[in-house]
Amino acid sequence: MKELRYGIIGTGAIGGYYGGMLAKAGKEVHFLFHSDYEFVKEHGLQVDSVKGNFHLEQVHAWHSTKDMPACDVVFVCLKTTNNTLLKELLPPLLKENTWVVLIQNGIGVEAEVQEMFPKLHLAAGIAYVCIGKFGPGHISHQDLGLLQLAPYDKGVGTAVLQQVVSDLHSTSIPSQLIGYQGARWRKCVWNIPFNGLTVVLNTTTQVIVNNAPACDLVRRIIYEVVEAANHCGGNIPHSVADDTVEMTKKMIPYSPSMKLDYDFHRPMEIQYLYTNAIAEAHQHGVEMPLTQMLEQELRFIEAGYLKSVTR
Amino acid sequence: MKELRYGIIGTGAIGGYYGGMLAKAGKEVHFLFHSDYEFVKEHGLQVDSVKGNFHLEQVHAWHSTKDMPACDVVFVCLKTTNNTLLKELLPPLLKENTWVVLIQNGIGVEAEVQEMFPKLHLAAGIAYVCIGKFGPGHISHQDLGLLQLAPYDKGVGTAVLQQVVSDLHSTSIPSQLIGYQGARWRKCVWNIPFNGLTVVLNTTTQVIVNNAPACDLVRRIIYEVVEAANHCGGNIPHSVADDTVEMTKKMIPYSPSMKLDYDFHRPMEIQYLYTNAIAEAHQHGVEMPLTQMLEQELRFIEAGYLKSVTR
Repeated sequence: MKELRYGIIGTGAIGGYYGGMLAKAGKEVHFLFHSDYEFVKEHGLQVDSVKGNFHLEQVHAWHSTKDMPACDVVFVCLKTTNNTLLKELLPPLLKENTWVVLIQNGIGVEAEVQEMFPKLHLAAGIAYVCIGKFGPGHISHQDLGLLQLAPYDKGVGTAVLQQVVSDLHSTSIPSQLIGYQGARWRKCVWNIPFNGLTVVLNTTTQVIVNNAPACDLVRRIIYEVVEAANHCGGNIPHSVADDTVEMTKKMIPYSPSMKLDYDFHRPMEIQYLYTNAIAEAHQHGVEMPLTQMLEQELRFIEAGYLKSVTR
Repeated sequence: MKELRYGIIGTGAIGGYYGGMLAKAGKEVHFLFHSDYEFVKEHGLQVDSVKGNFHLEQVHAWHSTKDMPACDVVFVCLKTTNNTLLKELLPPLLKENTWVVLIQNGIGVEAEVQEMFPKLHLAAGIAYVCIGKFGPGHISHQDLGLLQLAPYDKGVGTAVLQQVVSDLHSTSIPSQLIGYQGARWRKCVWNIPFNGLTVVLNTTTQVIVNNAPACDLVRRIIYEVVEAANHCGGNIPHSVADDTVEMTKKMIPYSPSMKLDYDFHRPMEIQYLYTNAIAEAHQHGVEMPLTQMLEQELRFIEAGYLKSVTR
């Protein structure tokens, strides 16, 4: 079987970790860097991981997709707040049958990208991983790691995605193919309560699950998300609320990506994680009052610091 | 008609303002002070008011209710977080037919005090006033002023309360007698959204009503409070949501009492304003999911700073 050539668009924590692990295993991986380009070109990529640290001296680092080769598989690891850039960024990487995997959070990302590129082979990438970027070209992998691949086009053969799963396994990253329906919602069960509440309450996941009222609030939000998910094609038992809380209690004290965006006064991924989820649930006849309250609190908080940043 | 003798228990902003205005008009008013006692004894009481500043050189200032004379009317202006103290504080001020007016926020305060003193003549005092205490014996009255009196005992004549209304009128403070049913809930329409959200979002009322998502959240919370109120004996039209927002837009940028408690790391009045309201609504068959979310966020926030204070 021919080896796959990988492209990573948006090399932050997620792209640097999954791409870095594949490159370390000898796969051909091309990375698009933004602000870190010069640094990585000179110093390489450093991954501090609970599974073992490593350094990639030489990486295929690029500053523009126009200079990159076409790839068999592209991981899109941009913040969803930058997804409008894909119209310009993606085409140079595409050849016939390129698979584009959107390793992003929230609801509705595939539909939007499919509209930009109607014939593209698209998959959702659902990453269950605690990760952060702590400096230029310096990634910190703190816990977990599962990457699920959920093909968005039903009619297309998934041999290439199977090979991605197998490539990930060869790097010891757990991975699996799953059905698209409900896959994104399943991740929302964790993301919707913990991303928003760590921002609104300005704290970590650990402090939240160890405070009785906040932990009860997490459960109430999860019930709401499960209800919405199950109206939108998911099939999630309500017991997931307890499981999610227990898993989070065992996790390291963690600042989700939205909390890091908040800490550094960057735009937050409110649209896909909250607004789109609420809208899709509404279309399927379910309201999400608590999620909407969280969304409105987040919009208020973001407006406050984005205004002060641009002042 | 015999002049009334007033006692003020808990002379903070509310007690200092209403008691101070009555004293300025020549009424006999006895004030219980806690930390400000020595200061007021020496320097008197200063009220900076939008309606005109004034200074009371000589006030009947007391440090213990045991030394105070029995009164015809007692205004209880304690934080509800201190209401357990009433069992000890009140008895020296009581004579036959003393009226005790609880000028406090939230749901269920009269029921609790009635349990301590089954034969007491009790009234709710509902204050619509923007006020703060900015130093020992120094009160800042910033806006509004209405004090509504709502007798809790249906069977008792209200001549004394009528006289209180008339005394307040003589000081230019708007006041009226109203029915108890729904009176406390009517104030909750403002208090529940704005007290909690100014804390959770760490801001003022003005910034909230001028931010579209936060202002929409205020309306959604108000709908919920109105729904609960109307199941608990209130009779409040849903249009009150728009009226409340418009009124708040015209108010000065304001930090409600709970926000001040938060700023100074004091316990917040979560129990009466949120927990009891949610419980009373539940007893009447209505849930308050958004109010409960606000309550849980507040409990989390309070636990964080109270713990760090006592450390």
